[in-house]
Amino acid sequence: MALQTRLAKMLGLVHPVIQAPMAGGMTTPELVAAVSNAGGLGSFAAATTSPAAIRTHIAAIRAKTDKPFAVNLFVLAPVEPNPSEVAFANALLARYRIELGMETNAAPPAKWAEDFEAQFEAVLDLAPPVFSSTFGAIGARKTAALKARGVLVVGTATNIAEAKLLEAQGVDAVVAQGAEAGGHRGTFVGRAEDSLIGTMALVPQVVDAINIPVIAAGGIMDGRGLAAALALGASAASMGTAFLRAEEAGTHPLHKDALGKIDDTATTVTRAVSGRHARGIRSRYMDEMAPHADEMPAYPVTNALTTTLRAEAAKQGNTGLMVMWAGQGAPMASVKPAAEIVEAASAQAEAILGARQEAK
Amino acid sequence: MALQTRLAKMLGLVHPVIQAPMAGGMTTPELVAAVSNAGGLGSFAAATTSPAAIRTHIAAIRAKTDKPFAVNLFVLAPVEPNPSEVAFANALLARYRIELGMETNAAPPAKWAEDFEAQFEAVLDLAPPVFSSTFGAIGARKTAALKARGVLVVGTATNIAEAKLLEAQGVDAVVAQGAEAGGHRGTFVGRAEDSLIGTMALVPQVVDAINIPVIAAGGIMDGRGLAAALALGASAASMGTAFLRAEEAGTHPLHKDALGKIDDTATTVTRAVSGRHARGIRSRYMDEMAPHADEMPAYPVTNALTTTLRAEAAKQGNTGLMVMWAGQGAPMASVKPAAEIVEAASAQAEAILGARQEAK
Repeated sequence: MALQTRLAKMLGLVHPVIQAPMAGGMTTPELVAAVSNAGGLGSFAAATTSPAAIRTHIAAIRAKTDKPFAVNLFVLAPVEPNPSEVAFANALLARYRIELGMETNAAPPAKWAEDFEAQFEAVLDLAPPVFSSTFGAIGARKTAALKARGVLVVGTATNIAEAKLLEAQGVDAVVAQGAEAGGHRGTFVGRAEDSLIGTMALVPQVVDAINIPVIAAGGIMDGRGLAAALALGASAASMGTAFLRAEEAGTHPLHKDALGKIDDTATTVTRAVSGRHARGIRSRYMDEMAPHADEMPAYPVTNALTTTLRAEAAKQGNTGLMVMWAGQGAPMASVKPAAEIVEAASAQAEAILGARQEAK
Repeated sequence: MALQTRLAKMLGLVHPVIQAPMAGGMTTPELVAAVSNAGGLGSFAAATTSPAAIRTHIAAIRAKTDKPFAVNLFVLAPVEPNPSEVAFANALLARYRIELGMETNAAPPAKWAEDFEAQFEAVLDLAPPVFSSTFGAIGARKTAALKARGVLVVGTATNIAEAKLLEAQGVDAVVAQGAEAGGHRGTFVGRAEDSLIGTMALVPQVVDAINIPVIAAGGIMDGRGLAAALALGASAASMGTAFLRAEEAGTHPLHKDALGKIDDTATTVTRAVSGRHARGIRSRYMDEMAPHADEMPAYPVTNALTTTLRAEAAKQGNTGLMVMWAGQGAPMASVKPAAEIVEAASAQAEAILGARQEAK
């Protein structure tokens, strides 16, 4: 069995391919199970999912696969935004609500985000084979609690300081998220602007800085990228955008369609959608909001305020106001069943590398 | 002989390692010749060098090596800046000139840049084994003239549109410059902001888009990066920052020193130094000028206006006002003779890849 990396052995994976968690309905139980059944590791992005729905979703995954899979959460503290920042954001968003025929004086959302502690308790109770976190470190105590239940714990880093912190808290592996990656930046130490480090430069630096397996993320779209990630010293590749057009992915049809039409320069990093830096297909909303992006309330407040707006835009097919997350490799995303994406990447990487990755 | 890629065969290289051109005195004849003598391809950055000095420099390289080497120029049209934009830039720069004890009402520079046509004529006449260009395409006629003299022609692209244009003009190979790369961005089609594409995502897209060899650049620091570049489909790696601390490099001692102290988040892309986007170690100058960076006159005007300022800052050891170009892999730059950097990278890449790269 080829490409048997250290992490693949720890997890019992046939292929060192992780389908990255992508919040927003993309990671259906069908997608997660298809990747895991193919010998990779599917990931359920549970960040914006309620504890009750997390239970249902994990049960649905377990009904479709007996292979390892991961559940991902955003690490969030409870927020109580200042009414003035909410009013400021709503004033900037009013033009879009009017354009979409929505109420501009709507009441604030019932909650700004799911309660992380309650989400975490649900995940701990359900003990999926792998837990991964983004936006922060869960701390040594929670890490130990997961490990005591047999859960393998993965953290996400965008720079070396974060990787070292995660290792010190006891995680089993670290995702090194390069600047190419689509969706939210995981940065939690330092400024997000300073941690847009390309995968080619970030991965070997993280590999040199810590002693646990590193998972490369950002711009990895096929077996060439997988082979490159392993060559850089990673133990696996986390591929997100590569699965956005997979048959099983819950990606909005207009989003899937746009991914097939864009060129290599189409994505940008914006703070205007959620209050956190994230990479997606450049849109009219992102361009128009660019002068105000840094003034919008921090995640999750802006995210909550734009949720209904984005949903309505998607319903109306208004792509200028939809959000379509994507990484810089997006034009390489293929329309295939997820299992074929996993198998093709692994076979191509094996052809490039041979079976030389056994020690990593 | 391992790692014998298509480009290595075309050039007669032992190792598919190109020492990237870095304008500013780094690419001494000693550095270029050391890389070429070791079996890689040294590059002389002649962009800011007069035709007469180009002749002297190439003669010095030829005295030290009989192996192939490259000469690089920036493709520039003559400029005649508007006096108001020069006055605006000088007003913003006055505080730094005062800080350094310099004249604030100095006459404009005798010339804004070396004359590209005269530089090109000198290079064509001297017919180095390889010519490479940055900041634009030299056109089919100049490309053909170089090829008729036996010169292999390389262009630099930061996106697919540029790569296709260069191929259509007849170049022999294209450098795909990823966002990690230090120094000036080569973008000449579209906005530089949109073409900060990470090496991991850019290289395979360029490889798929054109039919000539691709040279990967950006964040490649050692054999892991070289192997990754070849895995992505490149025929060679262009390594710049990796040679900044080489014994033979003409890098300013304070610049070499800073490279040994920075962390992974230390670089940024700025337009404030030269009027063109370029990546270097974040400095007080870059931070303070950030609000005005987009208003400064385009290259070469701002570059010419800051040249004496930067030189004086370097003389005084004022690192906050010096410019120290560097890529995102800078913390991995090693202090070694250039030949060792080439040989170590090639040997490590061969260990990772085996001799499987013969077809590329």
